[in-house]
Amino acid sequence: MTVTRLGRNPMYQQIADALREQITSGELEPDAKLPTEAEMRDQYGVSRETVRKALAQLVNEGLVISARPQGHFVRRRQPMVFRPQAEFRKRPYSPEMDAFMTEYAGEGREPRQVIEVAIVEPPEDVAKRLHLEPGDLVAVRKRVRYLDGEPFNINDSYFPLAIVRDSEIMRPEDIARGANEVLAELGYRQVRALDELYVRMPTPEQVHRLDLGPGTPVGVHVTTGFTGEGQPVRVAVTVLPGDRHVISYERQREASNEGA
Amino acid sequence: MTVTRLGRNPMYQQIADALREQITSGELEPDAKLPTEAEMRDQYGVSRETVRKALAQLVNEGLVISARPQGHFVRRRQPMVFRPQAEFRKRPYSPEMDAFMTEYAGEGREPRQVIEVAIVEPPEDVAKRLHLEPGDLVAVRKRVRYLDGEPFNINDSYFPLAIVRDSEIMRPEDIARGANEVLAELGYRQVRALDELYVRMPTPEQVHRLDLGPGTPVGVHVTTGFTGEGQPVRVAVTVLPGDRHVISYERQREASNEGA
Repeated sequence: MTVTRLGRNPMYQQIADALREQITSGELEPDAKLPTEAEMRDQYGVSRETVRKALAQLVNEGLVISARPQGHFVRRRQPMVFRPQAEFRKRPYSPEMDAFMTEYAGEGREPRQVIEVAIVEPPEDVAKRLHLEPGDLVAVRKRVRYLDGEPFNINDSYFPLAIVRDSEIMRPEDIARGANEVLAELGYRQVRALDELYVRMPTPEQVHRLDLGPGTPVGVHVTTGFTGEGQPVRVAVTVLPGDRHVISYERQREASNEGA
Repeated sequence: MTVTRLGRNPMYQQIADALREQITSGELEPDAKLPTEAEMRDQYGVSRETVRKALAQLVNEGLVISARPQGHFVRRRQPMVFRPQAEFRKRPYSPEMDAFMTEYAGEGREPRQVIEVAIVEPPEDVAKRLHLEPGDLVAVRKRVRYLDGEPFNINDSYFPLAIVRDSEIMRPEDIARGANEVLAELGYRQVRALDELYVRMPTPEQVHRLDLGPGTPVGVHVTTGFTGEGQPVRVAVTVLPGDRHVISYERQREASNEGA
C-alpha cells in the first residue's frame, strides 16, 4: 500500500490516517494485531521514529493498544448502554430503542458493585445543585460497578443528610428497590430530573479507580432529581469511560407540536 | 503551602492535585495566571522537571493552557448548552431547565455557520441507521457553527437522497424553518428520535476543523429521526468539543409510574 492521498500532511499522520481508516471500516477488526514496526518501516519506506509517532497517535486516540513486547492491537470496544431515562420509565417505548439496546446488551457478563457510604461536606457544585446552606452535610453513596471483574463506571450519589439520616440509604449495601424508592417512602418522590453531561479527560483519581488506559476520555453525567414541589433531593454523578459506554436517550415529538 | 496529603503519589502528581483543587474550587479563577516555574520550584522544593510534569498533566486534562513565554493560565470554560430535546419541544418544561439554560446562555455572542451540501455514498454506520441498500446515496449537509469567530461544533446531517433530491435541503443555505420541517412537508414528519452519545478523542480532521487544543476530548452525538411508521429519514452527527459544551436533557416521571 502507498499513502499518497494526503500529501500535505506529515508522513506519520498519513500512516495514522491509513490505519485509522482500516480500523473504523472494520478491515482491521477488534483485537487484530497491527503490522510490526519493522513491517511498517518497509511498507511505507519511513524511519522507526515515524512509525512510532503514527502508533503513538492512535494509542492517544484510544483506537490502538500497545502491548509490548507482543506489539500493537486494535482496541476492542464493547460499550454498555447507559440509559438515564430508565429510572423514570421502566421499558423503552419505541422499537428502535429496543433494537438498539439488544445490540449493545452485555450478554452473559457478570455484574458486581462495591458500595461505600460516607457523611461529608458537599463539593461546591453539589451544594449548589441541592440548594444547601453553608454547613449543611450530605450523605454520599459511592459505587464502583464492575463487569466481568473490570471496573466499568463510578456512580456517586449525594443526598441532603437532613432527609436521609436514619434511612436505608446510609447502609453500604445494595438497595434492591433503589434509592429513589427509599426517598419516595421518606416523602420525597422525584418527578423531574435535569441531566448535564460533560466530556473531559479523567483526573488521576478516576484513571486509578477505573483503570483507564492512555487516551481515554470520560463522560461525566450529573443528574439532579426534583420533587413535585421543585425541591432538589439527589445529585448523582456518574463517570463513564468513553471506551466502555454509549449514552442513549429516546425522544418523542410532543403532541402539541404535531400540527406545527 | 506544603503538600503532604497524598504522600504515596509521586511529587509531580501531588503538585498537580493541589493545583487542580485550587482550579476546581474556584480559588484560581478562569484566565488566572499560575505561579511561574521558578516560584513553584521554590514553593514545593522540587526540580524544574517535576514542576513541568505537573503542569503537563494539567494541560493534558484540559484545565490549564500553556502560553509561553507568558506562562500557564487557568483555562476558561464557557460552555454552550447543547439541548437535543429542543427540536421536538420548543421550550423547557421545568423551571430547573429554564434556570440552567439562563446560567449557560451565551449572552451577546455572535453566531455564524458555514454550510456545504454534497451527495455521497453514506458512511457504513449512517447507511445502517438509515436502513439503506448498497448503492443508495445520501445528501449530507455539513455545518460548522462559529461563535464570536471561533469554531464551536460540527453538525453533519444525512438524508436518503431518494426523498430529498429536489428539496431545499440540497441548497447550501440556512433553512429558517429547519430541515425537519422540510422533511415533514415532503411527507416524512419525524415523531421519534434515538440519541446516542460517544465520548472520544478527536481525529486529526476534527482537531483541524474545530481548532482543538491538546487534551480536548469530544462528544459525538448521533441522532436518528423516525417517522410515525418507523422509517429512519435523518441521521445527524454533531461533534461537540468537551471544553465548549454541556449537553443537557430534562426528564419527567411517567404518569403510569406515579404510584409505583
